[in-house]
This record gives sequence, structure tokens and C-alpha cells, in this order.
Amino acid sequence: MNQNTKFNAAILIIGNEILSGRTQDTNTSTIAQWLNLIGVKVNEVRVIPDIENTIVETVNHLRKVNNYVFTTGGIGPTHDDITAQSISKAFNLVYEIHKEAFKILEAYYKVGEFNEGRQKMVWMPRKANLILNPTSGAPGFNVENVFCLPGVPSILKSMLGGLKNKIVGGDPILSHTISLKTVESEIASSLAKVQSKNKDVEIGSYPFFQAGKLGVSIVIRSENQLKINKCNIEILEFIKNQKIEIVIR
Amino acid sequence: MNQNTKFNAAILIIGNEILSGRTQDTNTSTIAQWLNLIGVKVNEVRVIPDIENTIVETVNHLRKVNNYVFTTGGIGPTHDDITAQSISKAFNLVYEIHKEAFKILEAYYKVGEFNEGRQKMVWMPRKANLILNPTSGAPGFNVENVFCLPGVPSILKSMLGGLKNKIVGGDPILSHTISLKTVESEIASSLAKVQSKNKDVEIGSYPFFQAGKLGVSIVIRSENQLKINKCNIEILEFIKNQKIEIVIR
Repeated sequence: MNQNTKFNAAILIIGNEILSGRTQDTNTSTIAQWLNLIGVKVNEVRVIPDIENTIVETVNHLRKVNNYVFTTGGIGPTHDDITAQSISKAFNLVYEIHKEAFKILEAYYKVGEFNEGRQKMVWMPRKANLILNPTSGAPGFNVENVFCLPGVPSILKSMLGGLKNKIVGGDPILSHTISLKTVESEIASSLAKVQSKNKDVEIGSYPFFQAGKLGVSIVIRSENQLKINKCNIEILEFIKNQKIEIVIR
Repeated sequence: MNQNTKFNAAILIIGNEILSGRTQDTNTSTIAQWLNLIGVKVNEVRVIPDIENTIVETVNHLRKVNNYVFTTGGIGPTHDDITAQSISKAFNLVYEIHKEAFKILEAYYKVGEFNEGRQKMVWMPRKANLILNPTSGAPGFNVENVFCLPGVPSILKSMLGGLKNKIVGGDPILSHTISLKTVESEIASSLAKVQSKNKDVEIGSYPFFQAGKLGVSIVIRSENQLKINKCNIEILEFIKNQKIEIVIR
């Protein structure tokens, strides 16, 4: 419920293919789970189209109100890949060939294969710092607190490891899940009491359907394991009193 | 690239479970694809936490700059379900028992089962219009152009049909996909030429990996089938000239 985490981030998914519903975004979940581990909480996600003004305005808003912004998509070689030029505009930086990125891709491709299309991928905002790409060569980059990653999920995943020393986070955000054979309405009032006694812990309730059966998962989240344990005990107590069955998911 | 569609929408996903990465949102894709069919284009998606002020401010912004806003999540019976009260605040409406919703749920549940938790689900902004729920009883609602749907994907899906006569859209947004055995850099310059000759058609290029092979899908989107056909012919022409193989996906 509250947001007492010191380090926060926004994720900005850039791409018409997500807005049209054609492609299911999975990068949000990947980035968010990785950020939890290094103590950074995602405050907001936005999905926007491949339109330069929209990217510029959104990045300029998000980078001011979050410690970090992670963009995905739009850094490939085609005409609809306009993230790097948009980030240049957002920071009022020259959009130019990044020498180090050029060297990396020149070495990565066979002679004659580093063509015009691929060379587009080394155009970046001046002073961009590279984020290395162990999967397919072409690096991502960051300017200040804005980190630009590719849209292809497997490539994005492979690049997160190289980001770790660039991100300062807090304590890992821990979570504990209790899954129950019940419906939300049966636990709503008891759970609200636990939440009201533990205001600095995030307690969520999520219905699920598994093998045709209804259930509810209660998720407790905090940086503090002791606070999670305290909530857990209080929840287990009312579950026992109400004779609700715990299930393994 | 452009946004010449007359009717547009924003999707607002409300829920800490998406921001934490624990749950993968699939509702965006469901709603967006359904809206395409009735000629409404999704301009923007936002994911925000279960925080009242954030919901109020975001709804009040989005409803002014879009024809429609679709929210998902937060209309269940537990303490973290605060969408209905937040929408009441956003519209400055009384948050109260909706008589019609009360009757529906009173009839839906067996005698004695319509408990306090479940009764929370009939609290709505005054004058809310109901969106019927053929799956699990509890209705969603809309106030003016803001449509509030549940977070559980199967329930949400079942409720979209009942929305159709509440949404005025344009011509369906059509799309055509051409999948190629190539990499983006090989087609980037030819594809950019087609896009520059057909500025009011949205042409996207999306790499894919299938059975260990690399490929690219080109997606052409427009309300006008003739314009799609024209782009398709131009793309097939350069594909033939460059001896690129078409693949079936």
C-alpha cells in the first residue's frame, strides 16, 4: 500500500506491437523481478507508441520522478526503431555514431556484413554509456538514469546482468505467498485487519484458478523479513480460526 | 507511425502484483485486440499501484485525453481493491451501494452467502452504469468514458461482449503480416522506403525466433484494406528482388 522503498523505477515499453495487442509484453515482469532483487521498486509502467514526441515527453517526465527509467524496444535497425534518436532529443544531446559501439559491431560481424542497416544501431546520444549485449552484439545504452534495452525478451534478459554495477538499490524486496482454498470474500475482513495493523507491509490478495478449483493467494511484501514473518503469523492465525485449508501451488 | 484513427483509448492496469513482476499482465493484449475490431486504437497503457491518489490523478488525466479509458483490477472484495472508491473520487461522486448491483448479487449467491466481503463489490460511484459479468456475478461499471473491469483475465474476457453497445468506434483496424527468413538489417532500407511512400499506414518490423531460426515479421496496419494491399505489393516486390524467402508462422 505504501511506498517506503528508497529506490524506485519506471518501465517504459516502446512499441506499437504491444499497443495493438499483437505482442504480449513480458519484459515488464522480467525487469521488475530483477529490480526487486537489487532493492528497486517499480512505481509505474507505461506503454507508448513509436512516436518521437511521445517518447521524448514521456522520458522527460519519468526520469524526473523516478530514480531509474528502463526503456524497452526501438533500438534495432529498422525505420520504426526511434528510441536512440528520441532519447538524444529528450536530453538535448547530439545523435551520432558511438565509436565504442561501432568497434564492437565491426568486430562482431563478418567482413562485409556490417551494412548500413546494422550501422544504424551504433547511432546513439553523445556520451551514452554502453550496456553490453552477450546475445546478439548490438549494445543498449544509458544516459544518466535512463537505461535503453531491446524489445526482444531473450536478448533483454541476457543484458540485465551487465547492468548490476550501474544501479544502486536498497535492500532486496522480499515476498511470501500463502495460497488458500477459499474465496476472497471469506478472508477480506480478517485480512484487512492484518493490513491495518501492519501499514508498512504490502499485503495483496489474488484469486486464482487451478485445475478447475478456486483459490486465493495472499502475497506479503517488504524489505524486512521480520515484518513479513509477523504478518504471516497473524494470517496463519485467522486461517486456522476460520478453518481455511492451505494449498500448495 | 501516425495516429489518424478517430477513436482512441487508454488502458489502465491497476495492481501491485503487475508492478512487482509476480503476475504477467495479459489483459492489455485482450482489450487491445478487441478494441481493434471495433475501430478503437489504444494510444497508451499504464500500470499503477493500488494507491488511491495515484489512481485518481491518472484516471483524471487519461479520461480527458482519450475517448475511452479501460481500467482492470481492484474491484474485488478485499482491502487492496480500491478502484471503485478511487473512481468515485476522480469524478467527485458519492461512493455508495448500487441498488441494481445489490439485487444482482443477492440473486446470484445462495441465501446467507452474500456476506459483508461480497457486499463491498456493490459499492460504486453514484450513477455508475453496470457492466454485466456472466462468469462470476459481480458486475463492473462505467462512469462516463471510464470503464472498470476486473483483473482476472477469464472474467474480464467474458465481460467484453456486454460492452459493445456502449462503445462507439470507427472502422475496424486491419492488419496484414508478412514473415520472412531474414534479419532486420537486410530489409531496413527497403522497408523505410515503403513507409515513406505510405505515411498514413503503420508498418512495423519485429524479429522472431522460431525453431532456432531467426526471422522478421512485417506488420502492416490501417483501417483501409486498399492501403494495406498497396504496401503489401511494394513489400513483396523488394522481397522478390532481394531474393528473401517468405515463411509460414
